[in-house]
Amino acid sequence: MSHSSVGLVKTQFFTFGDAKNPLKLRSGATLEPVIVAYETYGKLNPKKSNAILICHALTGDAHAAGKHSSKDKKSGWWDSMIGPGKTFDTNKYYIVCSNVIGGCSGSSGPNSIKPNTKKEYGVSFPVVTIADMVDVQKRLLEFLDIEHLHSIAGGSMGGMQVLEWAVRYPDFMDSVIVIASTSKLSSQSIAFDAVGRNAIISDPHWNNGNYYKMKKQPNHGLAIARMIGHITYLSNLSMNKKFGRRLQNKKTLSYDFSNEFQVESYLHHQGSVFVERFDANSYLYVTKAMDYFDLSEEYGSLKKAMKRVLSKVLIISFSSDWLFPPEQSEEIIKACLSVNKTVFYTKIESSYGHDAFLLETKRLTKLIKNFLNGIQ
Amino acid sequence: MSHSSVGLVKTQFFTFGDAKNPLKLRSGATLEPVIVAYETYGKLNPKKSNAILICHALTGDAHAAGKHSSKDKKSGWWDSMIGPGKTFDTNKYYIVCSNVIGGCSGSSGPNSIKPNTKKEYGVSFPVVTIADMVDVQKRLLEFLDIEHLHSIAGGSMGGMQVLEWAVRYPDFMDSVIVIASTSKLSSQSIAFDAVGRNAIISDPHWNNGNYYKMKKQPNHGLAIARMIGHITYLSNLSMNKKFGRRLQNKKTLSYDFSNEFQVESYLHHQGSVFVERFDANSYLYVTKAMDYFDLSEEYGSLKKAMKRVLSKVLIISFSSDWLFPPEQSEEIIKACLSVNKTVFYTKIESSYGHDAFLLETKRLTKLIKNFLNGIQ
Repeated sequence: MSHSSVGLVKTQFFTFGDAKNPLKLRSGATLEPVIVAYETYGKLNPKKSNAILICHALTGDAHAAGKHSSKDKKSGWWDSMIGPGKTFDTNKYYIVCSNVIGGCSGSSGPNSIKPNTKKEYGVSFPVVTIADMVDVQKRLLEFLDIEHLHSIAGGSMGGMQVLEWAVRYPDFMDSVIVIASTSKLSSQSIAFDAVGRNAIISDPHWNNGNYYKMKKQPNHGLAIARMIGHITYLSNLSMNKKFGRRLQNKKTLSYDFSNEFQVESYLHHQGSVFVERFDANSYLYVTKAMDYFDLSEEYGSLKKAMKRVLSKVLIISFSSDWLFPPEQSEEIIKACLSVNKTVFYTKIESSYGHDAFLLETKRLTKLIKNFLNGIQ
Repeated sequence: MSHSSVGLVKTQFFTFGDAKNPLKLRSGATLEPVIVAYETYGKLNPKKSNAILICHALTGDAHAAGKHSSKDKKSGWWDSMIGPGKTFDTNKYYIVCSNVIGGCSGSSGPNSIKPNTKKEYGVSFPVVTIADMVDVQKRLLEFLDIEHLHSIAGGSMGGMQVLEWAVRYPDFMDSVIVIASTSKLSSQSIAFDAVGRNAIISDPHWNNGNYYKMKKQPNHGLAIARMIGHITYLSNLSMNKKFGRRLQNKKTLSYDFSNEFQVESYLHHQGSVFVERFDANSYLYVTKAMDYFDLSEEYGSLKKAMKRVLSKVLIISFSSDWLFPPEQSEEIIKACLSVNKTVFYTKIESSYGHDAFLLETKRLTKLIKNFLNGIQ
């Protein structure tokens, strides 16, 4: 694709809340100050009617498009979808993306400094939920003078936020786009998250969450968590295609415990690079928020939750996604239809597994462009 | 079922090999002495025609049936299938089961004492393959004066040994029974094994495999490996049925990082009890043997491998087994049929996932009894 980039961008910060007016969280705890890292691309039109909020997944951040420096090798995490002429066309739309609270990329999280102690929160940071994340996004939008959104879009955990938005603040947007997501994690998905968290917590360098000033960090535990995650993001088919049983750099078995299969080497690499960019405590907080998310629990039933929706809904799933399988999307669709909501649903045939939401750009573009155009 | 048990049994030991005549392994390394822990149930008939070899899975051992002491709470790992009147009827058959080499339940493995050093081998124990395990089983059978087997049966990694037997020593048995197994692991299954090994190796108490005399053992790493394994042994459906999103011992979220979902608590428990009975180094060796197993690689193609088979073949898979999925069993069946072998195949509809080979006793019994009777 020859579309151009949004170019050089900068992460900005919005702070709110003080001891008198802290952010109230679902747990009953409060948080102040609340720092929100965010980026915007494109321009808000005079009517303030062209804003789209993008919500990121587990390990994403506010940097969804463009580059921070001309030296950056990589662009933002959804650069393939956001930019002039792209799916989320910055010539038309004003795009906002913020880092979730509990995260580690600028917004308040366990690696933030706690006001009283002047030290990092660690696990004294309050546990946050998807609803809390959404409340913070709403505060950011109000700060940006946006009282209504053209659309909200997100994949995976981003899709959970989108669903929460649609149900919690139904008149705040014209449409929502939920990709490879669910109204609640399955037992199996909670299990994978739980093993990841156990790997971090049982790493002796985790030190009950107080490792920021330590010489060693819980990198081993975090790498294991990431490796487990990566297996669940790919499909069996895509792994067989990509790696099969091929050996890395050699033709014969080594008869030792090196990472000799290509798939081992790939996972090990993914684990190693991840610890450079992500905080182990944040991994605990953000996976916990995902595990807790359950629209039926929150609103009595999924039907009752979806009954609140006023916006048009586009839901997209991927055939080989076994972490957030199509059936979970179809459950939401069924609930919407049972209460006469306007919903559009597509299951994209793809071998990429859950990762498809970052890879199937061409097919997503067609679906989302049509959807966004239809509601203008 | 009211069938009785084989009663009290005892693990026995057979030792072979010395410096002049060591066991030669596929890696090129040698091993001596080789200790084999085994158990037998029932009696060898005068014709020596009623012996059945049982091969165990990843974490199994020689103790397949009965109890070691009347105080034992649990019976051997396949007690539901082995005993008077049971599937493998000890009134009719002489059952032999031995612990694989590389294991940790009596047979030579990384926790055995190395002759020269008088210390545990640790990772200086040679890497073993499924073919090596089978060679050792053959030596044991010869020692027991068994020159021909009525049948060989095993599930999961046990099934890999059965397949290797059928192809390597085709005239040694009348029939083979392969349950929930494969001729080679998929990329995804290697990946899960690899993450488990990484969890062990990155545990600081692993200490390059030299931890036997240490105060602390790599229990955290081994527990993580076991937890990952357990997710792959269950199906998504069985996890949703068994645990769903239910909380352990309470009704409201705790907003902390305790194991509050039932599925978290279950996995944590499985990890904790596993480290009491299994050796972390053995987990490395036995998973590596599984990853290496590839009949097509070993014999040129799966067809060429199966062309060697002379025994009757029964293959059983389970519909919800995603670790050793039915397609992998069907690949073996296709190869057998393409070279005109006598094969029987059943895919059992079950929601238990891979674990079904230990749980679907009733259906397995019917299939296996009919098969064994048909070949007498």
